[in-house]
Amino acid sequence: MNTVKTTEIRAHEGQRVRLQGWVQTTRQMGGIGFLVLRDGFGTAQAVFEGSEIDLPFPETIIGLTGTIQANGQAPGGFELVQPEIETITAVCESAPVPMGKRELKAGLPTLLEEAVVLNRHPSRRALFKLSAGVMAAFRAHLNSNGFTEFQSPKLVGSATEGGANVFELDYFGRKAWLAQSPQFYKQMMVGVFERVYEVGPVFRAEAHNTSRHINEYVSLDVEFGFIENHFTVMALVEELFTAIFEHLAQHNETELKLLGVKMPVTNGSFPHIHFREALELITAETGERVIGATDLSPQHERWLGEWAYRTHGSDFLFVVGYPMVKRPFYTHPDPAAPEWSNSFDLLFRGTELITGGQRRHIYSDYLNALAEAGLSAEPFAHYLDAFKFGMPPHGGFAIGLERLIMQLCQLPNVKLATLFPRDMQRLAP
Amino acid sequence: MNTVKTTEIRAHEGQRVRLQGWVQTTRQMGGIGFLVLRDGFGTAQAVFEGSEIDLPFPETIIGLTGTIQANGQAPGGFELVQPEIETITAVCESAPVPMGKRELKAGLPTLLEEAVVLNRHPSRRALFKLSAGVMAAFRAHLNSNGFTEFQSPKLVGSATEGGANVFELDYFGRKAWLAQSPQFYKQMMVGVFERVYEVGPVFRAEAHNTSRHINEYVSLDVEFGFIENHFTVMALVEELFTAIFEHLAQHNETELKLLGVKMPVTNGSFPHIHFREALELITAETGERVIGATDLSPQHERWLGEWAYRTHGSDFLFVVGYPMVKRPFYTHPDPAAPEWSNSFDLLFRGTELITGGQRRHIYSDYLNALAEAGLSAEPFAHYLDAFKFGMPPHGGFAIGLERLIMQLCQLPNVKLATLFPRDMQRLAP
Repeated sequence: MNTVKTTEIRAHEGQRVRLQGWVQTTRQMGGIGFLVLRDGFGTAQAVFEGSEIDLPFPETIIGLTGTIQANGQAPGGFELVQPEIETITAVCESAPVPMGKRELKAGLPTLLEEAVVLNRHPSRRALFKLSAGVMAAFRAHLNSNGFTEFQSPKLVGSATEGGANVFELDYFGRKAWLAQSPQFYKQMMVGVFERVYEVGPVFRAEAHNTSRHINEYVSLDVEFGFIENHFTVMALVEELFTAIFEHLAQHNETELKLLGVKMPVTNGSFPHIHFREALELITAETGERVIGATDLSPQHERWLGEWAYRTHGSDFLFVVGYPMVKRPFYTHPDPAAPEWSNSFDLLFRGTELITGGQRRHIYSDYLNALAEAGLSAEPFAHYLDAFKFGMPPHGGFAIGLERLIMQLCQLPNVKLATLFPRDMQRLAP
Repeated sequence: MNTVKTTEIRAHEGQRVRLQGWVQTTRQMGGIGFLVLRDGFGTAQAVFEGSEIDLPFPETIIGLTGTIQANGQAPGGFELVQPEIETITAVCESAPVPMGKRELKAGLPTLLEEAVVLNRHPSRRALFKLSAGVMAAFRAHLNSNGFTEFQSPKLVGSATEGGANVFELDYFGRKAWLAQSPQFYKQMMVGVFERVYEVGPVFRAEAHNTSRHINEYVSLDVEFGFIENHFTVMALVEELFTAIFEHLAQHNETELKLLGVKMPVTNGSFPHIHFREALELITAETGERVIGATDLSPQHERWLGEWAYRTHGSDFLFVVGYPMVKRPFYTHPDPAAPEWSNSFDLLFRGTELITGGQRRHIYSDYLNALAEAGLSAEPFAHYLDAFKFGMPPHGGFAIGLERLIMQLCQLPNVKLATLFPRDMQRLAP
């Protein structure tokens, strides 16, 4: 007999089929036993009638043979009757938390400590199916727009971009560092392929524990040439997000429904506001005097997110033109007002989700910017080679995958959107 | 005027169009100037007639406007006439090596040192387009077979799998290590999604310099449940490779032609030989007495590769059943002869390209195997949780992306198949 997937049973009504998977739940009710089997694709219910049956422990691996019968009461509308069980792998211990409830009743510490088994819970699987969907949609949109994927090295020979906040390691008797972003490499790669992207881990040795930070995360990085300015980059961000949410709506309906995800709203396009005007607005409307500030606090971002929703009907808001003093040296200034930058943050429901912008592309501008920042050019020698040999105006951005999932699913902590999170205390599982 | 890609000019015959990109080469011949422009997609030639023109330095970024004209002599059959140039980014230095030749005339040290600019060479771009093609084909085949993508953490809290050969780092005052493979995580994820894959960096602190090793590489990892044994895994390997080479033939014709790639040959399916029989064969046919050996040397792998080609007409050969003593503790033994393993290596043109096999799936088997290997179970506690709670028979494999490209393109060194390689001496660019 052919083994079929749980998601295929409706095509076999009246036939006897074999499924295989994990026992998700069992219950006995008035002489009838129910068993829900989970495989990599979904779940299916089997009904045992008559004599007492010893239903196996949850998470036992079984083969389950039965006749497919329509039943409006069964989840999915079909179930297995006259079932037979073969045990493939027995278990000797119960899961730390019931796995069959719609909601996973476990606090954050338990979730993190028992991630290996609790990630099997339907609500956790749904989250990580969405992560996979986001990665797939990201690549599909960029591939169809002439972008080339690449993989940058994570071991680097100078603690350059951020200076602080990088992990240091011993590399055959000398120092190496873990890349905190593929920024320099993706810019170099614009010289090679014009339009590039990467999906990969980045490492941040940030010594703080907040609900929005983890020390290792997945970064979706984009960089491309022949832009006019940061607005060209923002146009791609908008297109890309639209494509990602359409992909999820189309391919991940089950997960979105199970998680009760409220899909983002926009009013046709993502509004934008200049950083300077954002400060004026906050001052005028809240009475808090923030004019002259060089950055936005999380509270101000939240306020702006609410303002964008209220006045523009949008869950997204671009804040553009952040002061140059707060942006890294490779940021391109606004040619008309060089104290402001051609950069942006994208706020999604009031939390920063993306940072991006136009980069400098002239070799001598880099030398001047490094000198102004009081940085020696020497550790940047290879990076600067890219600009010695001709680079077009270019820009890009990075999306934190876990933060996107957190905001989309309105989770209270980014660790909940991470399979095996790394924080100051946690390096396992 | 709309800017078009170099690859689109044939659709604009007789029209005036604008291109933008890098000056790849210029030459003057009998009062005529030729300029080859490169963008992210390909190249196009412009012809300057009449008066002397100062053609820009190679790698200068220009806009190039001209009228598209058919010319059988021109590369691609079309060229731009009556061209006009606007300089977008000037360069002040020549590339270290001519960028216009079909072959890149540079030794390995120069290639590595000047990778930032030399990776722009058409032969290098073609290699990395193939890498991107392999990743895309890998994901496409697995997605269409019900696999789910995930990303495992690279920072781990115990130097487990290999013991030696892992990079150690300071993690907020305690020790952490860089994962040398996602082996444990991909097995845990079989418990979550049944079929999983990952594309990501792995780190090997191996203190040797060979033409086949780098200290950071891209690993294409697969793991899935409900297999019969390692032959189920090998069947997927064969399908996947067939899909990858079909994808390349279909989407990367230009690159395969430019690099002169000899596509792999098979005689319908990949042959396999048991490790024990391989030793007998080598002994019988070469006179070298290797019976009783526990591993194959690179020379023996080469010999077996030639033998497979000679007798089976195949560039691929599976060697199965390696002795358990040489395989990691999670390897599943052959139930009929437990000194041999249900594992395999895939040789491609006589070099090991993949290692894989069936893994143990019973909790108590893990405890016994760890005890036999003289290892404490404690550092493996989280990993073992996966088996406490029910795991199906499962297996998988890992492909080294750079090694696959090296073997496919018959390069003498794996560093040549890597954008920015890391070896004992090199952490930059």
